[in-house]
Amino acid sequence: MAVSGSKENGGRLPEVVIIGAGFGGLSAARALAGLPLRVTVIDRRNYHLFQPLLYQVATAGLSPAQIAAPIRRILRGQKNTRSVMDRVVGIDRDRRVVTTETQTFAFDYLIVATGARHNYYGNDQWEETAPGLKKIDDATLIRRRVLLAFEQAENATSDAEVQRLLTFVVVGGGPTGVEMAGAIAELARKALAEDFRRIDPGTARVILVEAGPRLLPTFSEPSSLAARKQLEALGVEVIAGVAVAAFDAGVVKLADGSTIESNCAVWSAGVMASPAARWLNSNRDAAGRVLVSGTLTLPDDPRIYVVGDTASLVDARSVAVPGVAPAAKQMGRYAARSIARHIHTQSPLPPFRYRNYGNLATLGRKAAVAEFGPLRLSGFPAWLLWSLIHIYFLIGHRNRLGVILDWAWAYATYDRGARLITGSSE
Amino acid sequence: MAVSGSKENGGRLPEVVIIGAGFGGLSAARALAGLPLRVTVIDRRNYHLFQPLLYQVATAGLSPAQIAAPIRRILRGQKNTRSVMDRVVGIDRDRRVVTTETQTFAFDYLIVATGARHNYYGNDQWEETAPGLKKIDDATLIRRRVLLAFEQAENATSDAEVQRLLTFVVVGGGPTGVEMAGAIAELARKALAEDFRRIDPGTARVILVEAGPRLLPTFSEPSSLAARKQLEALGVEVIAGVAVAAFDAGVVKLADGSTIESNCAVWSAGVMASPAARWLNSNRDAAGRVLVSGTLTLPDDPRIYVVGDTASLVDARSVAVPGVAPAAKQMGRYAARSIARHIHTQSPLPPFRYRNYGNLATLGRKAAVAEFGPLRLSGFPAWLLWSLIHIYFLIGHRNRLGVILDWAWAYATYDRGARLITGSSE
Repeated sequence: MAVSGSKENGGRLPEVVIIGAGFGGLSAARALAGLPLRVTVIDRRNYHLFQPLLYQVATAGLSPAQIAAPIRRILRGQKNTRSVMDRVVGIDRDRRVVTTETQTFAFDYLIVATGARHNYYGNDQWEETAPGLKKIDDATLIRRRVLLAFEQAENATSDAEVQRLLTFVVVGGGPTGVEMAGAIAELARKALAEDFRRIDPGTARVILVEAGPRLLPTFSEPSSLAARKQLEALGVEVIAGVAVAAFDAGVVKLADGSTIESNCAVWSAGVMASPAARWLNSNRDAAGRVLVSGTLTLPDDPRIYVVGDTASLVDARSVAVPGVAPAAKQMGRYAARSIARHIHTQSPLPPFRYRNYGNLATLGRKAAVAEFGPLRLSGFPAWLLWSLIHIYFLIGHRNRLGVILDWAWAYATYDRGARLITGSSE
Repeated sequence: MAVSGSKENGGRLPEVVIIGAGFGGLSAARALAGLPLRVTVIDRRNYHLFQPLLYQVATAGLSPAQIAAPIRRILRGQKNTRSVMDRVVGIDRDRRVVTTETQTFAFDYLIVATGARHNYYGNDQWEETAPGLKKIDDATLIRRRVLLAFEQAENATSDAEVQRLLTFVVVGGGPTGVEMAGAIAELARKALAEDFRRIDPGTARVILVEAGPRLLPTFSEPSSLAARKQLEALGVEVIAGVAVAAFDAGVVKLADGSTIESNCAVWSAGVMASPAARWLNSNRDAAGRVLVSGTLTLPDDPRIYVVGDTASLVDARSVAVPGVAPAAKQMGRYAARSIARHIHTQSPLPPFRYRNYGNLATLGRKAAVAEFGPLRLSGFPAWLLWSLIHIYFLIGHRNRLGVILDWAWAYATYDRGARLITGSSE
């Protein structure tokens, strides 16, 4: 039954299938380079997306191509690996195959790294009004809506309509929500400030609604407070401790009975794992994430790994592994190393431990909050650090150069490089 | 009846409405800067598009934002001018108003610069199979189809299917068709060459079909021939003297009875003016262009100008003004100068004369053909000239810098910066 080395396969190399080329899947694939096995990376898109900068696409600071790189391009030098663009429709654990829309892929080892989508907690109809920010198409949709709001306000005939069009609601005070709110406020007050004749974009209201008691709940309280102060300095109105109750036409209703007249909302209040748990028919947590063992495998199947936002794990040091890019990368590398050990029939790895190198969130053009163990930064030093780290982790020298150029330009001029309203009208 | 100066308007400034912010409309708007009149530029998009480089977006070389600039940003320093994003639905010549979806705009002078769309010569149903290349959404659609063809070929199960997926048909041998064919061939043979495992992108066929006897009919015969040779050196198959008869599912039928199995076609075989002639209820030529007087106005209405691809004119030197960017810019500036004269009740301008500074078309990464009067260039010198000219005319220093960077990178590495398959699946 065991398929632990090439010999036991009748001479063929072990097949590793990786589903998803986000941070987790791609890290796993790279860590398998050069090993005596065949790796297949399946993704329904042709690019790896650097999601932490997606909010900059949504607010016209960067172009999609600057934060995305073709998966085949990234992996083309890795001779044991092939890349497949296809949509997975199921996993057959008994037959050991992954089925896509066009093919089936047999595996000896499987790494599921399919990420997460927004979680509307049962109110999926809210997505149309308040899209989330996970994909490039989400970002260009939000960019379209935000920029269009200013154009429509310029054409509007009543003050009430102008005010409604220039009110933006961001739901969820985690890093994405905080970054979106800061970026929209800066877009209105800086980049667009002098471009209109009838409206004053500087009067736009940006309202950040967080159901919990404070912003950035995974950060320390002082950092939360610093973030709130910096956002308020940018002109963002923060409402904490109140959940959204409903989205109606042009009105956001809050749980305390108050309402906000707005046509443009963004959802960043929670994520739900991809349908991987259903495919695997395995146990999952409330957010749909697969409950994995300490070695990141299914408890009853040590050759099926689940990593990144799709996995639910309290690690060996009782740390609940968060759904962030560094965790996904660490899990992807762990899964790859674990497979390599297994093939060489070495002793298994000790259980996975998440190493938290720090928390970072940016707040507009030159402020951020950062925490590295006991070290806390805020304001410009944190922003500088944030910029360096994000540029460093961007894949591909070309993207790095383009982003540096655009950021330097934006920093010097407040200009935004990607103010395009594209896509069909809704 | 005359509205020739501010006095005759009861003290109000003359209103100039410009419809369309392409090369013609934008040149007119800029030439009206600082004059004692009120200028309104109406466009249904929020950006000016540098159409001559659109084929590079369609072939993953550039991002949309690199060849587009927000109209309000371009005009924001021009205090007598406002920019309106709206869709024009009609022109009332008697009441002197332009009607958009949300408003009406009274005018004393009107400049119609609404450009052109593809012309399928009565076969509009071909557009779905063979889209043209005029808008950003066209370019991202074509980019999606071209890149997807390689991905689907990699997943295909039969050789016939691979061959069909890797056959690209470009219809029309004018500059756009020639540039598209060259860019697709290079994409296949260079940028994608090492990225696939099962297919060899280098085996892709790129077929350029031109109904007339030779490519680039507006160029001299030697340049046509040079273009054909350079394209063939890139691996493009040129079929001249044969028109397309029909597009069926997966098959392009030619007028000589032959067929080409292909799933991916691009249309660049002709243009049809925008519906402006209908709005104006004026005489038009076979391509729907408004027949204008020698001063670019309607023959019976000397305050309504039509410029650029929307106008049909044989100029004072019996030159039929072509539908190219330099002609549109010259016409836009002429209309603005003519209005300025009219307001100051100076003698009218002499009739418009098109100055042809030359013809240019690029053929892949380092070849082109160029003609400037008696001077003819081809190969690398022509390409260098083409690059310099296009960068010079790109609006906005930021875009110039970005394009230079991307071209330098592509030149050094053959890499393409925008290999994204985005948009909903069709």
